Amino acid sequence: MSESKFGYHEPCEMSASARDAYLAFAIELSERAGETILPHFRPAAIDIENKVREGYDPVTQADRAAEQAMRHRIAEQFPDHGVLGEEFGFLEGAGLTWVLDPIDGTRAFVMGLLHWGTLVALFDGQRPRIGVLRQPFSRETFAGDCEHASRSCDGAKQRLVTRRCASLEEALCASTSPEMFSSAEESARFSHVQGLVRDMRYGTDCYAYAMLAAGHIDLIIEASLQPYDVQALIPIVEGAGGVLTTWEGENASMGGAIVASGDPKLHEQVLKELQS
Amino acid sequence: MSESKFGYHEPCEMSASARDAYLAFAIELSERAGETILPHFRPAAIDIENKVREGYDPVTQADRAAEQAMRHRIAEQFPDHGVLGEEFGFLEGAGLTWVLDPIDGTRAFVMGLLHWGTLVALFDGQRPRIGVLRQPFSRETFAGDCEHASRSCDGAKQRLVTRRCASLEEALCASTSPEMFSSAEESARFSHVQGLVRDMRYGTDCYAYAMLAAGHIDLIIEASLQPYDVQALIPIVEGAGGVLTTWEGENASMGGAIVASGDPKLHEQVLKELQS
Repeated sequence: MSESKFGYHEPCEMSASARDAYLAFAIELSERAGETILPHFRPAAIDIENKVREGYDPVTQADRAAEQAMRHRIAEQFPDHGVLGEEFGFLEGAGLTWVLDPIDGTRAFVMGLLHWGTLVALFDGQRPRIGVLRQPFSRETFAGDCEHASRSCDGAKQRLVTRRCASLEEALCASTSPEMFSSAEESARFSHVQGLVRDMRYGTDCYAYAMLAAGHIDLIIEASLQPYDVQALIPIVEGAGGVLTTWEGENASMGGAIVASGDPKLHEQVLKELQS
Repeated sequence: MSESKFGYHEPCEMSASARDAYLAFAIELSERAGETILPHFRPAAIDIENKVREGYDPVTQADRAAEQAMRHRIAEQFPDHGVLGEEFGFLEGAGLTWVLDPIDGTRAFVMGLLHWGTLVALFDGQRPRIGVLRQPFSRETFAGDCEHASRSCDGAKQRLVTRRCASLEEALCASTSPEMFSSAEESARFSHVQGLVRDMRYGTDCYAYAMLAAGHIDLIIEASLQPYDVQALIPIVEGAGGVLTTWEGENASMGGAIVASGDPKLHEQVLKELQS
């Protein structure tokens, strides 16, 4: 394993005041990204490149320009920090790493739909300590630091608290797509749980995690996620009282197959069902 | 068949100036509905009744209050018109019928998601002549009269025009859920087309039709729709240059299995594939 591969390392210390300053900076980054992205949303004709030859993974101009804008600000403000971004890879730093997804939900974005957003996290070597989701079209910012989470829109700010829901039979569940699972076995485990919940909605990407933090969704089951798809969401979900882990109940910082629950008791239940 | 069942009849005549006045009134109705609905969106706890014993079909207070508000205005302004609404059924009139879905996408609504809206159509006995989709959270109004379609937001208005896309292989496709099809045969026909298109996104409800009219989505394939789920969308899609029919290429006013295309050539192609 090369030293320039993103992964776990000894955690960096972070005071509460440093954490608050980083969170304010992360919100600023997400707002800058939003300003860069929004003029590219719903154009008359959109330039889409195929990043991957097989399958469909559009990268818009907006995606690249927004990540460049964020990387530029990080280099100015915290030149010794690392950066991992969806578009331009991993730049190793001296401890803390900014983990960026300029547009999570690019396929929704190119269709003019609304469930997408900019994700910004700060990884301490073991876990993301702060996370921000910004949807510039709806002008909403969801932010968390693992202990608190909030939603801000047009200057109004409210605390986010997950909903209690201790039973799968009552759970409103979301997942980006039933086709996102990477193996027949993963699909079968997902379908098993799908058959137990009250409702399953698709087409949600990052936005569902904000609604789980806000107490409107109980459960999210996904797979094939990258670190930059999930890291920003962990401090928001945990800050609102929820739980976000891998299907095995482990640290989800490196992505993979992910489950998030608003209620910790529901989380225990869904982990058992995903194993069975 | 009782006379009080909603269905086809001899078409009512409608002048262009009457049509324009009805469209303005339909927009007013949708705005009134939005004002009634929005305070109920994302509450701390939502009252949901189960309308159907089997399955999950939530009706919120917002749904009922918004339909009542619209029915009240129609009775004031056009006392001889009929009304068909999702919540309070069919009131037969002397010709024209207002077709209302206060919240299309209630399952998205209760999860705090954004792909839902108020639908208002005016049916002349053979087809809907005007249609409005209002999303009060994003403050967007999509309106059409089969010849023109527009999007309005915060006082700015733009014309909607569908995108040319003559090949299924290039088509960006949407559907509310892969589980919405009413039979194994319908599911198989959907899956056949799904395997041919460039991308398929779920979780879209009425909002996808607005994005098809705006030229960002090429194709929508759905089933199990009611008249009030689809009528408002026909004048918007047609007014933007698209086509909306049943899977058999027939008048879609009574709902059922529906296909909408931005490009009429794509529509011919998808109808053939849905038959094969």
